[in-house]
Amino acid sequence: MREIEVASFVPAKLLPQMADAADVVRHAITLPGLTVMALVPNRKGAQAALEAGVHKLTMPVSASVAHSPMCARRRPEMVEEVRAISELRRAIARQVKLEAGISTAFGCTLQGLVPEDDVIRLAAQCIEAGVDESGLSDTVGYANPAQVRRLFKRLRAELGVHAGAAHMHNTRGLGIANCLAAWDEGVRTFDASLGGCGGCGGCPYVPGASGNAVTEDLVFMFEAMGVRTGIDIQKLIAARAPLMAGLPGEPVYGMTPEAGLPKGFVQETIARV
Amino acid sequence: MREIEVASFVPAKLLPQMADAADVVRHAITLPGLTVMALVPNRKGAQAALEAGVHKLTMPVSASVAHSPMCARRRPEMVEEVRAISELRRAIARQVKLEAGISTAFGCTLQGLVPEDDVIRLAAQCIEAGVDESGLSDTVGYANPAQVRRLFKRLRAELGVHAGAAHMHNTRGLGIANCLAAWDEGVRTFDASLGGCGGCGGCPYVPGASGNAVTEDLVFMFEAMGVRTGIDIQKLIAARAPLMAGLPGEPVYGMTPEAGLPKGFVQETIARV
Repeated sequence: MREIEVASFVPAKLLPQMADAADVVRHAITLPGLTVMALVPNRKGAQAALEAGVHKLTMPVSASVAHSPMCARRRPEMVEEVRAISELRRAIARQVKLEAGISTAFGCTLQGLVPEDDVIRLAAQCIEAGVDESGLSDTVGYANPAQVRRLFKRLRAELGVHAGAAHMHNTRGLGIANCLAAWDEGVRTFDASLGGCGGCGGCPYVPGASGNAVTEDLVFMFEAMGVRTGIDIQKLIAARAPLMAGLPGEPVYGMTPEAGLPKGFVQETIARV
Repeated sequence: MREIEVASFVPAKLLPQMADAADVVRHAITLPGLTVMALVPNRKGAQAALEAGVHKLTMPVSASVAHSPMCARRRPEMVEEVRAISELRRAIARQVKLEAGISTAFGCTLQGLVPEDDVIRLAAQCIEAGVDESGLSDTVGYANPAQVRRLFKRLRAELGVHAGAAHMHNTRGLGIANCLAAWDEGVRTFDASLGGCGGCGGCPYVPGASGNAVTEDLVFMFEAMGVRTGIDIQKLIAARAPLMAGLPGEPVYGMTPEAGLPKGFVQETIARV
């Protein structure tokens, strides 16, 4: 796995389980060949993440006007926060990458429909404010493949090389199909989680934000299609054991690990990172 | 739902739970507007299904040379069985439609890889033997979207209007993505099951043949994409209750029913069948 979002630098009083984010980052950066990313909701979180030594920051910016308490600021204020983080990054850690994740890009549990023009405009404003790339997130699992194709096509037309990742959830069973739709439009970076665990950076304020796309099934899809991911599926499946041991009682998803790989399925030589 | 595969006319000594297939068909044909389909593995089953009054027969024909005990005959013999069923149909029930479902079209749990040329040739031989359409089935959940596109493209190029349905399983999490891939190639008939129940016509001889694509998630995908299915999702979800009551302890899949429909999601006027 070349890049992992290892922690969220969110207020410990809201999310105490993320209180040791800096410790996690400090360990993660000792792993060779890994780009260590952290989610930051604001400038304060960005400062802490940069001090811990992350390689990449991702900031959720909601396209909806009505969102969670943690992301409640209005869009112009969010863009100014993005600009402040970008300037902070430039001042103290120029080599660190900065991504904006346009959340509720495909709909919002509070607002319902989110206009596509708003999504694309916000993504462009984030680039203008200094981020390296803007991706599109469906943290609530509202997206469908036609919409994914339409929005990523527009995003790539508008932002070119600054168009970022697809962050799809499987809340309504379309997570992998939506990744395929994004792939068809040229997206080459996908957010997913082992066992489909977690959601929205651990944010408990987005109802129904569970069900990240399952890494195991996504990697199986790409490898079966002949797309080399650099990930050894057998080792990926083995990595579920410590996850389940560490989070007893947490639901763990994924069909490929249950079914096993097809007979005769051979991964090409695993690329070394 | 315009068409339902309601039963399998398989030997009762192998599958006693299908012993009342004729009763099920006789009730199903009283429902207005429904095309009642049954799976038949051979001429004897076809005779019983036709006598019960089905509107459509589907016969699984395995592209693999090594398959289950029930489907163990070699391909030339299978094609001759298809021809016999077609002639029987012509003799006693000309209006009944006949479909061949090319099973193990995307791989086989015993043989592994199945050559694509074999699949397409067998599909064409079934048309030549008298069936109305040949579809492609992935009862073991080996298919990936690139393969689905490649095979359905060839099938449609070879068979034209005789190219049939996509029968996808979610065994490795790709069921819905594979349906999307088939849709992209022009397929407009999809096999799926309520709650993802069942597999391979109830056949217990195909290891890992569980996990039909989930109708609820598939209908949600199409309706969200703006494709009108004629199916009322709310009523479809409500239909899970009698299924679960009737099959206690049976695993029932589907993410959309758990999550509910997105806020603001409105189906266009439901087409009347």
